[in-house]
Amino acid sequence: MSEEVKVFGTLGSPMSCRVELALKLKGVQYEYIEEDVHKNKSPLLLKYNPVHKKIPVLLHNGKPIAESLVILEYIEETWKGNPILPEDPYEKAMARFWARFLDEKCLPALWNAAWSPENEREKAVEEACDCLKTLESTLKGKRFFGGDTVGLVDIAAIFIGFWLRVLQEATGQELLSAEKFPDLVKWTDEFVSCSVVKESLPPRERLWAFFKARVAGAMDAQTNASK
Amino acid sequence: MSEEVKVFGTLGSPMSCRVELALKLKGVQYEYIEEDVHKNKSPLLLKYNPVHKKIPVLLHNGKPIAESLVILEYIEETWKGNPILPEDPYEKAMARFWARFLDEKCLPALWNAAWSPENEREKAVEEACDCLKTLESTLKGKRFFGGDTVGLVDIAAIFIGFWLRVLQEATGQELLSAEKFPDLVKWTDEFVSCSVVKESLPPRERLWAFFKARVAGAMDAQTNASK
Repeated sequence: MSEEVKVFGTLGSPMSCRVELALKLKGVQYEYIEEDVHKNKSPLLLKYNPVHKKIPVLLHNGKPIAESLVILEYIEETWKGNPILPEDPYEKAMARFWARFLDEKCLPALWNAAWSPENEREKAVEEACDCLKTLESTLKGKRFFGGDTVGLVDIAAIFIGFWLRVLQEATGQELLSAEKFPDLVKWTDEFVSCSVVKESLPPRERLWAFFKARVAGAMDAQTNASK
Repeated sequence: MSEEVKVFGTLGSPMSCRVELALKLKGVQYEYIEEDVHKNKSPLLLKYNPVHKKIPVLLHNGKPIAESLVILEYIEETWKGNPILPEDPYEKAMARFWARFLDEKCLPALWNAAWSPENEREKAVEEACDCLKTLESTLKGKRFFGGDTVGLVDIAAIFIGFWLRVLQEATGQELLSAEKFPDLVKWTDEFVSCSVVKESLPPRERLWAFFKARVAGAMDAQTNASK
């Protein structure tokens, strides 16, 4: 069956990486279209996601879907092989709960911990660690959040599995330590070792350079502010 | 089949109202447990939703589920009659997209439009109107967001169907006017006229009194600030 599957994304975005990973897990062939989200959004992106004007967008046989978690559920329902959600409604609800927790609590908390001004840093770090603690207890020694295989929560947590560790190297700030979060660090290692995950990730050195430039920018801003 | 279905909610919360409405639509009997979320959260609520410590929580045969949109999907998958989501994966994705839009964009925008300080009000009102405009174009003359019957998006939009109109009466600020948003106002009338919706709503006068007290509080705060 020939079908049109396109992903509008940005290299370095964990959100478009989620979509690519899910498609690869399902064995779905797709065309990737790189968007310049900072300076020059394409007319197609604006047409397909007029509400948020953001990546990622999945285009399937001419029909656009936006919002990464909505896209993941669509992928699950459209291509049934290699399920990323459990069948049981309660287990499914739990996966959805944790995916939302990742987006609504963890992501902003980790971002704030990395980039808050000095005087707000301590509180931000504390909040980020609380989130990681909650995730650690959710794993409870399981191989993946999804159990024995990569599921929706693992895919949603990709920004912890890869981005956070690169960010930590660039900033020198270690939130996710093996001492404090042994299960989560073990999950990270296991997750990024999966060949399908490896194939989906952006080049480490590009991400590192991006974060490093941001660190330098933040330091300049701070120096200028204190002048 | 005898089963335990309990809803932990708060009178006046559109989020617990969503859960009650969905259960009523499905014809599921449940026990409602009122929570004092401001001053005295019950040990049971803290036990069942340790991550967010918030209502609503649905307890089904001893298993707790939190987050209203997650609960609605669980209800849909557990009690199949009177579906609130379309079967088609694309239509389902659209419903999920709009439900998220309501929570992530509309709710904060409408709240800010009502309670922002004077000097930020104009921008907040503009943002809220943009959200309503987007919803208006989504309805496109349909009876409900779900088509001919009440669906997930209608249930999620309950804070516009009921809360917003009571809020407007209390503040005297009319965002949702029939002139600007004829389809949305028509939807509101249609929606709150459904007997099952009527049964789920909190008493109008209590909500009005709550908003009125908040208006008075906001005015006092402003007077004190300008002294």
